[in-house]
Amino acid sequence: MEIIKDPLEIEKRSMEIIRPYVKDIFTDEAELKVASRIIHAAGDTDYAKIIRIHKEAIEATKKAIISGKNVCTDVEMVRTGINKKKLAAYGGEVLCKIADEEVAKKAKERGITRSMAAMREFGEKLTDSVVAIGNAPTALFEVLRLAEEENILPAVIIGVPVGFVGAAESKAALMKNKKVPYITVEGTKGGSPIAVAAFNAILYQI
Amino acid sequence: MEIIKDPLEIEKRSMEIIRPYVKDIFTDEAELKVASRIIHAAGDTDYAKIIRIHKEAIEATKKAIISGKNVCTDVEMVRTGINKKKLAAYGGEVLCKIADEEVAKKAKERGITRSMAAMREFGEKLTDSVVAIGNAPTALFEVLRLAEEENILPAVIIGVPVGFVGAAESKAALMKNKKVPYITVEGTKGGSPIAVAAFNAILYQI
Repeated sequence: MEIIKDPLEIEKRSMEIIRPYVKDIFTDEAELKVASRIIHAAGDTDYAKIIRIHKEAIEATKKAIISGKNVCTDVEMVRTGINKKKLAAYGGEVLCKIADEEVAKKAKERGITRSMAAMREFGEKLTDSVVAIGNAPTALFEVLRLAEEENILPAVIIGVPVGFVGAAESKAALMKNKKVPYITVEGTKGGSPIAVAAFNAILYQI
Repeated sequence: MEIIKDPLEIEKRSMEIIRPYVKDIFTDEAELKVASRIIHAAGDTDYAKIIRIHKEAIEATKKAIISGKNVCTDVEMVRTGINKKKLAAYGGEVLCKIADEEVAKKAKERGITRSMAAMREFGEKLTDSVVAIGNAPTALFEVLRLAEEENILPAVIIGVPVGFVGAAESKAALMKNKKVPYITVEGTKGGSPIAVAAFNAILYQI
């Protein structure tokens, strides 16, 4: 068996394999690239049917990046995966508070998850930022609450928390929100690589 | 809708939801925990049918951890996700060479992926270590080549590269190898959270 060792060739072939699964669902080229990268990151073509991209989401993300806005995320794996060098070229950085001592303390006091406390701790910093949630449904619920109750509005929410407790519900709530454009996937699937793939796919299109 | 905010309760409910999907496939309790955490990390119960755990893999991983061996990985996201504090308590650390300048240079010279060059760069350091591959099929192929041709034998290979170009083939080759116990998934699915979930699930059982 011959192993393909050229990274550009791997990328090209991969996108060719994915294309038939997405081409009739995503007619917009920018959205098609986002969907393709998500499928690539998961190795799972079933994502084609569950990816939901708000019509303003990609432009809003591009605008935020170009304006030097930050990315606020719930987990370190998302921070690790995002192309920070390219993001920094526009002035933005990736912020994550999950490991902050203060956040851990507040989470314990309030009986909530650290991810939730971390989002609350961001507070006004979420305004006009790109929110990328790759793990915790509670983090997404909290961002939606901040938008609804405190009118703290991110530029876009890439919300793909994963799992069987609250993930599907949090993403359904995201899709129902009328204030912030979003990128998400329906159901229980998701995770850090999905958030990273969606974000980087847009970053690479600027 | 009531949001469950207690992390322990979320974990417990999640495992209860996953259990019916795995209980008849994995009769060994340690394997069942690994499989459950993988499904939890992917939000995808279809993993139950594709997870493959070599009968010596979990014990080999435990032994390596307790002996203070390192984890060698192909991508930073795996390093980020592994519970390094708990691993360090036994003396081990997580090593990743993907961002090394020297590795990038050698990859370019040889016309191979950086992941592949990074594994070659580890060389003898892979011996008795836990290899965790969450992204690149080429990295897994290279580790298998080192085992086969140079008799460099890790304690275990957690090999779950993802994607449509080489991933399924690299994992099929992993399952065929007779030298090193493995944890893997069949097909195109996989990724960093899957490698992390498998490793942490064993770490938490020690």
